[in-house]
Amino acid sequence: MYERLTILSGRSNPALSAEIADFLGIGLGHVDTSNFPDGEISVKLNQNIRGCDVFICQATSPPVNDNLMELLILIDACRRASAARITAVIPYFGYARQDRKDSGRVPITSKLVANLIVQAGAHRVLTMDLHAAQIQGFFDVPVDHLYAAPILDRHFKSLAIPQDELVIVSPDEGSIKRTLHHQENLGGQLAIVDKRRANPLETRQANLIGGSIEGKTALIFDDMITTAGSICGAVRVVREHGARRIYVSATHGVFCGPAVQKLNEAGVDGIVVCNTCRDACSTSLRNLTTVSVAPLLGEAIRRVHRNESVSHLFD
Amino acid sequence: MYERLTILSGRSNPALSAEIADFLGIGLGHVDTSNFPDGEISVKLNQNIRGCDVFICQATSPPVNDNLMELLILIDACRRASAARITAVIPYFGYARQDRKDSGRVPITSKLVANLIVQAGAHRVLTMDLHAAQIQGFFDVPVDHLYAAPILDRHFKSLAIPQDELVIVSPDEGSIKRTLHHQENLGGQLAIVDKRRANPLETRQANLIGGSIEGKTALIFDDMITTAGSICGAVRVVREHGARRIYVSATHGVFCGPAVQKLNEAGVDGIVVCNTCRDACSTSLRNLTTVSVAPLLGEAIRRVHRNESVSHLFD
Amino acid sequence: MYERLTILSGRSNPALSAEIADFLGIGLGHVDTSNFPDGEISVKLNQNIRGCDVFICQATSPPVNDNLMELLILIDACRRASAARITAVIPYFGYARQDRKDSGRVPITSKLVANLIVQAGAHRVLTMDLHAAQIQGFFDVPVDHLYAAPILDRHFKSLAIPQDELVIVSPDEGSIKRTLHHQENLGGQLAIVDKRRANPLETRQANLIGGSIEGKTALIFDDMITTAGSICGAVRVVREHGARRIYVSATHGVFCGPAVQKLNEAGVDGIVVCNTCRDACSTSLRNLTTVSVAPLLGEAIRRVHRNESVSHLFD
Amino acid sequence: MYERLTILSGRSNPALSAEIADFLGIGLGHVDTSNFPDGEISVKLNQNIRGCDVFICQATSPPVNDNLMELLILIDACRRASAARITAVIPYFGYARQDRKDSGRVPITSKLVANLIVQAGAHRVLTMDLHAAQIQGFFDVPVDHLYAAPILDRHFKSLAIPQDELVIVSPDEGSIKRTLHHQENLGGQLAIVDKRRANPLETRQANLIGGSIEGKTALIFDDMITTAGSICGAVRVVREHGARRIYVSATHGVFCGPAVQKLNEAGVDGIVVCNTCRDACSTSLRNLTTVSVAPLLGEAIRRVHRNESVSHLFD
Amino acid sequence: MYERLTILSGRSNPALSAEIADFLGIGLGHVDTSNFPDGEISVKLNQNIRGCDVFICQATSPPVNDNLMELLILIDACRRASAARITAVIPYFGYARQDRKDSGRVPITSKLVANLIVQAGAHRVLTMDLHAAQIQGFFDVPVDHLYAAPILDRHFKSLAIPQDELVIVSPDEGSIKRTLHHQENLGGQLAIVDKRRANPLETRQANLIGGSIEGKTALIFDDMITTAGSICGAVRVVREHGARRIYVSATHGVFCGPAVQKLNEAGVDGIVVCNTCRDACSTSLRNLTTVSVAPLLGEAIRRVHRNESVSHLFD
Amino acid sequence: MYERLTILSGRSNPALSAEIADFLGIGLGHVDTSNFPDGEISVKLNQNIRGCDVFICQATSPPVNDNLMELLILIDACRRASAARITAVIPYFGYARQDRKDSGRVPITSKLVANLIVQAGAHRVLTMDLHAAQIQGFFDVPVDHLYAAPILDRHFKSLAIPQDELVIVSPDEGSIKRTLHHQENLGGQLAIVDKRRANPLETRQANLIGGSIEGKTALIFDDMITTAGSICGAVRVVREHGARRIYVSATHGVFCGPAVQKLNEAGVDGIVVCNTCRDACSTSLRNLTTVSVAPLLGEAIRRVHRNESVSHLFD
Repeated sequence: MYERLTILSGRSNPALSAEIADFLGIGLGHVDTSNFPDGEISVKLNQNIRGCDVFICQATSPPVNDNLMELLILIDACRRASAARITAVIPYFGYARQDRKDSGRVPITSKLVANLIVQAGAHRVLTMDLHAAQIQGFFDVPVDHLYAAPILDRHFKSLAIPQDELVIVSPDEGSIKRTLHHQENLGGQLAIVDKRRANPLETRQANLIGGSIEGKTALIFDDMITTAGSICGAVRVVREHGARRIYVSATHGVFCGPAVQKLNEAGVDGIVVCNTCRDACSTSLRNLTTVSVAPLLGEAIRRVHRNESVSHLFD
Repeated sequence: MYERLTILSGRSNPALSAEIADFLGIGLGHVDTSNFPDGEISVKLNQNIRGCDVFICQATSPPVNDNLMELLILIDACRRASAARITAVIPYFGYARQDRKDSGRVPITSKLVANLIVQAGAHRVLTMDLHAAQIQGFFDVPVDHLYAAPILDRHFKSLAIPQDELVIVSPDEGSIKRTLHHQENLGGQLAIVDKRRANPLETRQANLIGGSIEGKTALIFDDMITTAGSICGAVRVVREHGARRIYVSATHGVFCGPAVQKLNEAGVDGIVVCNTCRDACSTSLRNLTTVSVAPLLGEAIRRVHRNESVSHLFD
Repeated sequence: MYERLTILSGRSNPALSAEIADFLGIGLGHVDTSNFPDGEISVKLNQNIRGCDVFICQATSPPVNDNLMELLILIDACRRASAARITAVIPYFGYARQDRKDSGRVPITSKLVANLIVQAGAHRVLTMDLHAAQIQGFFDVPVDHLYAAPILDRHFKSLAIPQDELVIVSPDEGSIKRTLHHQENLGGQLAIVDKRRANPLETRQANLIGGSIEGKTALIFDDMITTAGSICGAVRVVREHGARRIYVSATHGVFCGPAVQKLNEAGVDGIVVCNTCRDACSTSLRNLTTVSVAPLLGEAIRRVHRNESVSHLFD
Repeated sequence: MYERLTILSGRSNPALSAEIADFLGIGLGHVDTSNFPDGEISVKLNQNIRGCDVFICQATSPPVNDNLMELLILIDACRRASAARITAVIPYFGYARQDRKDSGRVPITSKLVANLIVQAGAHRVLTMDLHAAQIQGFFDVPVDHLYAAPILDRHFKSLAIPQDELVIVSPDEGSIKRTLHHQENLGGQLAIVDKRRANPLETRQANLIGGSIEGKTALIFDDMITTAGSICGAVRVVREHGARRIYVSATHGVFCGPAVQKLNEAGVDGIVVCNTCRDACSTSLRNLTTVSVAPLLGEAIRRVHRNESVSHLFD
Repeated sequence: MYERLTILSGRSNPALSAEIADFLGIGLGHVDTSNFPDGEISVKLNQNIRGCDVFICQATSPPVNDNLMELLILIDACRRASAARITAVIPYFGYARQDRKDSGRVPITSKLVANLIVQAGAHRVLTMDLHAAQIQGFFDVPVDHLYAAPILDRHFKSLAIPQDELVIVSPDEGSIKRTLHHQENLGGQLAIVDKRRANPLETRQANLIGGSIEGKTALIFDDMITTAGSICGAVRVVREHGARRIYVSATHGVFCGPAVQKLNEAGVDGIVVCNTCRDACSTSLRNLTTVSVAPLLGEAIRRVHRNESVSHLFD
Repeated sequence: MYERLTILSGRSNPALSAEIADFLGIGLGHVDTSNFPDGEISVKLNQNIRGCDVFICQATSPPVNDNLMELLILIDACRRASAARITAVIPYFGYARQDRKDSGRVPITSKLVANLIVQAGAHRVLTMDLHAAQIQGFFDVPVDHLYAAPILDRHFKSLAIPQDELVIVSPDEGSIKRTLHHQENLGGQLAIVDKRRANPLETRQANLIGGSIEGKTALIFDDMITTAGSICGAVRVVREHGARRIYVSATHGVFCGPAVQKLNEAGVDGIVVCNTCRDACSTSLRNLTTVSVAPLLGEAIRRVHRNESVSHLFD
């Protein structure tokens, strides 16, 4: 139905885009994206994309506003250049935590961003591990939502940790569902850090729900690591409860502010994230392992382009 | 018709916003705008604005993407907080030069930005000296478009330069219309810098159209100064043609990249801009005079709020 | 700003509508709503509503499709009759659980419903205890989202259960946040039913997380009770763990299918729900207490109409 | 242009859908449609429809609200599952009689329904014998509007009623155009029942316009039979004027309320309707003949899918 | 709610606009509407209309395209000039007969026109005697639809024609409903011209349904007279059946092409139309009586402006 | 992607449409476009266009309102007839000069027209030499904007005017950019007519900027000639400055009002325009040369249809 598959890359994560194009066996589309001296973004497509099935790869990781505007401008350029179909491929969807009004008089920036992407001209969205699955419903255009959990689990399975030594830890109450999912796949014991009660007057025993983890290997899963405050707090609790080895893992390694310092100080045995955000690939973090989502995104793009089932990716 | 007039300020030019609120004799509305550690913008309104006639002051000057997104998020917050009417007050409208496809396969970012502002929920726009007047037509909502020329001209009239010493200079062919307008108001001789021929092989006489300016006082007008490359080139031509004193003036003093250094080196007798962009107020430029648009914007807001004619502002 | 406050009622919960109108000290607006012999809904407004601020009260409880279409048709009638503003007051928002694609190729009916309500002509929405808070973001029009928790908690406080006898129970992992909220307000111990492990091969001790509840009074909170399968399962676990008295509570008492029979058989000491759904008021359930949300909704309507803060309702 | 032709069926008239799929020589698409215990509709597509040309067959016959919502939810599911094109095939279009404001303050539900169908994501509509042809204009998407008259006429021609015995009767003033159309095709005499004057004080002769029908065979045509009140009134008048045999016919046999009883009591010699509504196929009506529109709809679908002329269907 | 009532007039029927403004006791708003030499329409508002409740009076009578575009441009000017509310007052709604696809591959121009009016920025429509009532449903904005029948009937009642001499004639089958409405109000006998059979081979007796009209006074009603072909055909039939006096009447006297000549030749005793189209006021037709709709439109505007019931106009 | 290329022609410039179809080697599509007696436009497509890639050729030259409405109605007919893609081919885009609010309270008719074209159903626009390039941004659908300058320049190059005899003249300040473009291509000297100073009290020498043109051949370029007032004024100035031969040229020869008389009186040596407007082909102008844009438009259509680069047209 669509003439040619074309992969364009914004500047938020060019390495991932190149890897995706490699996976698909095609080169990246030719586009010049730069900044004018006043910071305004300049975009020029250097190839004909009329009638093409264009996938624009751009994570909206920090600097989020620059990356988001660049995505919107790329979409506008493609629309006006007569692309047949434009898919916004957003490995990391920024502003996702502002997805509801938890107090009065605040924006729902996540919905605003969804509206902007559609208004700019995107016909569909391909994204990964949204902070809340309901964000799919912020769009009326089709959204393909991929999960990185199997990729992360595959990594941990390769470590061959004995089941009776393994404990899967949720860093807070809000992450229990995700943690349960990992535990079903990896086995081992479940534990939940009860952040709410983490005040100095209570005993530390109260801080971990789920039985003894003394001498065990703890895997703490979150959907994203930003300042690493929350996950380092969980590391501390887990360590205090006697875990022998501690890994932390997340789909999105945003690593901003004091994250690198905190994580290095936390002294974990391994940090495992996907390459959805650029910084995850280039950071000075010790013990960082980055697993690639390029094959997953690449295969999804191939299937979307060929009208094949994307659900099969989850088998 | 609208309950209360409320002025909210983004962070791009808070001094101007405060000055506007002062002019109107009301305080600025209470809103907390900050950044999360990962750079995402957080907005929270700290007062009830239900049914209010809200004016959000935010220039989309550099950093343009941050300022634009902040404007959009503020609009979203106001819409969801049940503002009766939301006017985006944009003293400087960024991305304005990307207003048409002058070559194939480029975006029309200016239209994209207009669409985003309306999509976010703005009911009207109040802006100044758009790079192209046609940008008004990028909106279907009402746009009030103000001109700073009278404010700048008033400043130069106060210098009492004798008419026979005065020459009004257009820095390039594209600015002739604006320059003619100033000349009709200020009098003096007209001159045009012919940038197109400004190559080393041609004589310098060819570079200035409009008769001798030897010993005169030249006022060079542009709509905005960004890197100052263009206007400093004009200064050089005007100086080579014997002008005794040289002033440069623009509505929007964006002053980015090498602008301050270039202008300081150009050694002009005065730089006169409006305070539409924050940097214009705080820069280390020598000989800089900033004239305020706060009374003009404030009066326009008052009239819009009261349904009085804004055209009368031009009398 | 708006001429007259007008409350119209659909047929899903007329008793609640009447109670709201009473609270506001005005009569219900005159509208004839009936069915043609073929089941099509007929609506006729019997009073002039031009320029009025109309609130249409209609829960989309079962029969959900009839109640939803009736709401849409009422909105259409009001729009065409020149209402100045139309607020859909939806005490119970049906189809709320279909709020994301948890597997491939399913609808997001909750978003569809939001789109239909706006397409029909509603300018705003007033609702209570949405199944997921993100549904607010399915709308771009303002949504006022009220919480019934304080009303339910007030009821339980009036029972004066001693703190050391009290245990607040989450019926599953997905309800922990809500349960924590109640516990912060009511005090007592926290317990979580771990539904995932509720298979016959595991010991029953594994089914309740949170320490001994032997001899205590358990309050189990959910957001809605439909078939009561989940909550009755929780009751069974709690009873097996030795609770002396057991109350179940929810905002929305939908009570469909086998709910009444199951709940009667479960033999709880009290069932406490709000009157957001009609059936909750008229059911043959034993030990049912219905607390009214009419004052809350009525006060919210009054404040929306007068442009007063609705956040203050939560103080 | 479109990858595969896919026919999906809602639950309003599965027999017709199956017959259409048979005509096209393909199976019905795999979709699970059911109700949750609280009556909410659940839809899940069990096959990949990416890039497909999907036709969703669903009459909005009674229960109209359930059938309409099911249609909308099916459309939403197909849109989110990346169907290339979605055609709503609506053999009977409910709410069609509410197509204008004949008094103040009523909805135009027919237009509302059209808006909902488009809002949900339908790209086109295929329907039959709309109550008013103007309903096509309620849509901006393409509408293919088929007529069942040739199918009904073919049936009556097969009865070989002599021309001089035949009288074609309009049951009221509003149906004259349709009746004239049948008469042009079938021949015979024309008669019009003047419902307006059907009051006891006037002579019965006044009730039938168009000359003597004594001893003749009367065919009474309407577009739909719902409660059968109107058509049974016409039967009575026609019988009083001496008709020997009486047939009633309509495209849409909705047959609701007292229709079956009334028609059985009316003792007509034949009732001939199409199978656009399910009840028409399964009713206990005596002398009912159902003629199938499946070949007509099937052929229209084939032509729409292949971009062939649908007008040719009328030759 | 709206600041000031403002009546603007296009150039299609300025006399009617002036009469409406007089009725309301206010002057017409100041607007310059003219044509550039190339025929493009130029509009300039000469008064401040910010916050005003603007009614733009413009019939879309011939030259229909010029009058329609002028209406759209006036709306655009008012929208951009910040009118609070814009009502298109369209005494005669052109293109109304193209309201459905009666054959394949034709436009539904009537719906297109409705879309254009809303796209230009009209918030509501006030119109009279639409060719098909369903055109109201072509709009989602409120439409106030007035009927001229009472005004025309009042005129004929003033002629005091005895009931037994009076016959109300429908000029064709499509006008029966309208004719019945007049007959209910005026009394007299009903007759229908059967145009379909008006071919030379049939007897002329067949051409009139409804009993003898010998020596009577016939009133023939249509909704509009354009070329007068249809109505003059009806006049001929009625005369052939022995009517002594014949009046023709319509709401809209479009009178184009050969209409004046034909009507003058037809020799009727009176032609009675409303002043919805300009030509009706200035034509050289003999026996023409024009009755004014200005009081009806004026009162409707007053009531719309004041949010009073417009339905009351029909009492 | 699209089944068949179909070229439809409105009635504004059928000769150009036919020439385009000839260039493409296909016949014009079959459509009946006519006027009803009351002036309403009637359109009927006489061929199946389902799934076709339809290009509708219609200049919106005078009579602009008729031609524009005809374009909109043609688009509506094609949309409802299931065209796969509709491109409005507008060789001359009327209302283009009303592209901004240069004073208060005026429309931006150019934007209104863009909105109407998209509202009617056009998916893309192909046009030439827009009065302002920013009008491209009035559309969100793709616009292919062609330039006639190379065609006009080719004509003048064929005249082989010696470079030192050639002067390229801008008729006013607003046309300098366009004139510079021609001069870069054709060579010769540049001159600018300073209309602003063209008052009787100033010397005529002041009226031409750019050095002596005594005895030279002047080519005056404008984008369009309507009344020819502006260009004939420029001819007079150029003649007074001693030009020996004078040619005037424009893309769009609208030639309305006194244009023919004025141009004939001006006595120029040649008038060169494109055939974008019909009148340019049939006028009684002396010395008129019309160069055809049909190959340019035809090639652009071919490339758009085949998804080939249109930018290559400019090489």
